[in-house]
Amino acid sequence: MTKARLEAFSDGVFAVAITLLALDLAVGGPGAKSLADQLGDKWPSYVAYVVSFFIVGITWVNHHSLFGAIAVVDRALLFLNLLLLMFIVAIPFGTATLAAYLTADKSDAHLAAALYAAILEGAGISFTLIFTWSVRDPRRRHHPLTREDVRPAVLRFGLGAILYLVAIAVAFVSPWATLAIVAAMALYYLFEQVTDPLASAAQLRRG
Amino acid sequence: MTKARLEAFSDGVFAVAITLLALDLAVGGPGAKSLADQLGDKWPSYVAYVVSFFIVGITWVNHHSLFGAIAVVDRALLFLNLLLLMFIVAIPFGTATLAAYLTADKSDAHLAAALYAAILEGAGISFTLIFTWSVRDPRRRHHPLTREDVRPAVLRFGLGAILYLVAIAVAFVSPWATLAIVAAMALYYLFEQVTDPLASAAQLRRG
Amino acid sequence: MTKARLEAFSDGVFAVAITLLALDLAVGGPGAKSLADQLGDKWPSYVAYVVSFFIVGITWVNHHSLFGAIAVVDRALLFLNLLLLMFIVAIPFGTATLAAYLTADKSDAHLAAALYAAILEGAGISFTLIFTWSVRDPRRRHHPLTREDVRPAVLRFGLGAILYLVAIAVAFVSPWATLAIVAAMALYYLFEQVTDPLASAAQLRRG
Amino acid sequence: MTKARLEAFSDGVFAVAITLLALDLAVGGPGAKSLADQLGDKWPSYVAYVVSFFIVGITWVNHHSLFGAIAVVDRALLFLNLLLLMFIVAIPFGTATLAAYLTADKSDAHLAAALYAAILEGAGISFTLIFTWSVRDPRRRHHPLTREDVRPAVLRFGLGAILYLVAIAVAFVSPWATLAIVAAMALYYLFEQVTDPLASAAQLRRG
Repeated sequence: MTKARLEAFSDGVFAVAITLLALDLAVGGPGAKSLADQLGDKWPSYVAYVVSFFIVGITWVNHHSLFGAIAVVDRALLFLNLLLLMFIVAIPFGTATLAAYLTADKSDAHLAAALYAAILEGAGISFTLIFTWSVRDPRRRHHPLTREDVRPAVLRFGLGAILYLVAIAVAFVSPWATLAIVAAMALYYLFEQVTDPLASAAQLRRG
Repeated sequence: MTKARLEAFSDGVFAVAITLLALDLAVGGPGAKSLADQLGDKWPSYVAYVVSFFIVGITWVNHHSLFGAIAVVDRALLFLNLLLLMFIVAIPFGTATLAAYLTADKSDAHLAAALYAAILEGAGISFTLIFTWSVRDPRRRHHPLTREDVRPAVLRFGLGAILYLVAIAVAFVSPWATLAIVAAMALYYLFEQVTDPLASAAQLRRG
Repeated sequence: MTKARLEAFSDGVFAVAITLLALDLAVGGPGAKSLADQLGDKWPSYVAYVVSFFIVGITWVNHHSLFGAIAVVDRALLFLNLLLLMFIVAIPFGTATLAAYLTADKSDAHLAAALYAAILEGAGISFTLIFTWSVRDPRRRHHPLTREDVRPAVLRFGLGAILYLVAIAVAFVSPWATLAIVAAMALYYLFEQVTDPLASAAQLRRG
Repeated sequence: MTKARLEAFSDGVFAVAITLLALDLAVGGPGAKSLADQLGDKWPSYVAYVVSFFIVGITWVNHHSLFGAIAVVDRALLFLNLLLLMFIVAIPFGTATLAAYLTADKSDAHLAAALYAAILEGAGISFTLIFTWSVRDPRRRHHPLTREDVRPAVLRFGLGAILYLVAIAVAFVSPWATLAIVAAMALYYLFEQVTDPLASAAQLRRG
């Protein structure tokens, strides 16, 4: 029951956050510029929208896999989940800022890209903490992981955390490179199993 | 469990997207123009609101029918569902843009209507991909469809995809014709069974 | 299952709509006017917020009672429910417009109050249609109502529809009277059982 | 069933309210000021965002604990829950106002902090009323509380209500002290069991 409501609440937050991404698509309305020009000027918003939509969506998918394997919800997990959601909810802000500054002044564009990657790094670290918490006591999981299971998962999470750090650093060279790294990671997390091989296998079996 | 959370998350996204449609109803507040004049000027927003509200609502109904018949959720389906939601979430943007430009400069109105129909076409194609995915392997459905069941369903989906293409093309002649086609399709999908005769029948039986 | 998802979707729409009411509370930020003055100027927004919050909340409660008694969900009910939600989602718009014009020019205030009451009338009529649909075929309800049960329920619904009509008419005399009628009806619906005596009794028993 | 939908609706409202907090993070876009300066100017928004995010999140956690122990939902509880949600939904407004005025004119900053604490006090009182309602009749709870259980819980709730009153009063001396008290209370409620020792223990057992 506790877990069901935590998941329902998290689902709601993910759903609202992913939908708020679209608020940044809006154009200014009839005026000096034609609609075609306005849409053309806003192309960074459309790229950023697609990338962030899949990032939030995939994080939601992985959130679901991760919690599918968790058996016990305590105060620490509630706190860590809030921490994760705090970064998820900030993604529309990071996305809109990145889109607004991507074609603006150079140092602004660098900072906007670093901010965007930093928000994702925050979400990634929170995710890793939830996973780490879940494996520290075998009673916390439906199917306790063996050391052999934990190692590659920790490696993958660690890789993610490091890649987002790289994306932050790279932002000060090229905001586009940051966006490319983030998009590549979204694709990777989409097509690879990230969180928990056992849980994922069990899900496939259960459907 | 996987499917339950996918449905819960999708329900949330549909619910937020359909509610955000109403943000575009707002008038500017007391000023030079009377409220009556402001409401009068905004009439395209009210037409667009009603049409889009029923489109999102009916797509939600059909999403529910479609997933009611699906037994297995894998990564491909999660991705296709995210693709669908990405277009659903963009509908308030398309609706607001259409409403803002419908009575504006001619070429802007044409482009706004084409953009609106293109977003719906994107949702329609995603929907068709989900259906196609679900029938390619009989184990993916609670009640595998026979060839006789699949053919009319594919025809209906194909018709939808073609009609939205027509709506895009027609936008460059008359934005109103686009809106009329879209409204007519909403009515059709409302009163006809679209997605899955077996699932629908089963639903009626189950209530 | 059909009903569970209809309820989940409706819950989501009600939850987003009730939360969007708060967007209208915002003040303009530091500027020429002090915060105290700005909050003072916005007092109609706070009155309208409280009234509309309870109206949406109570409608949600009654929606829940009404659907608790319904056994079969068909396309007609899905359509009627969308119709209801279309008006619910418009309530934040009606509320913000009423609040903005309540202390403005007289004819604008009258129109804003009429618009507000008209949106509520639309929700009330949709609600009555859902109830009427549910009693027309006894198989649609878990506990078919007897004629003795239906008559007072229809009377109550009819009274609601008529009172909202009165509220619309009264708007052209005094917007305050409209708001008072609406607030009184919210209180009435809060403390009286409206929708379905049997379902309500069953709920009390089930808890 | 009644309780399940009340919880689902409340979860939705909490999820939307917590996500709307992030709307206030937005910067103005490219212009006279650099992005770094704009982000620097907005630092009160980031502090307020983190504090309010955890307040809403923790209130949600405690809402869940509180309702986990409740067995019967009647009209009074529905009303009290709406009252609580009315204050929860106003938190993004209070947060944005506090952030906008925290570094503004002194008397405005005092008023903004008092408004913020007053909204939280409203939520705290509603919470206490829900708890009080639930213990007044033993049949309303799954595990009736003994007098020994009720006393410390009432003390804790009372302490919360008093501390928020202190935070309101302190606002007129120092808005920062108000924010500090509120943040300290969030931390306390996060790490201490507040609502119901029995329910919490049962949760740990059930996971």
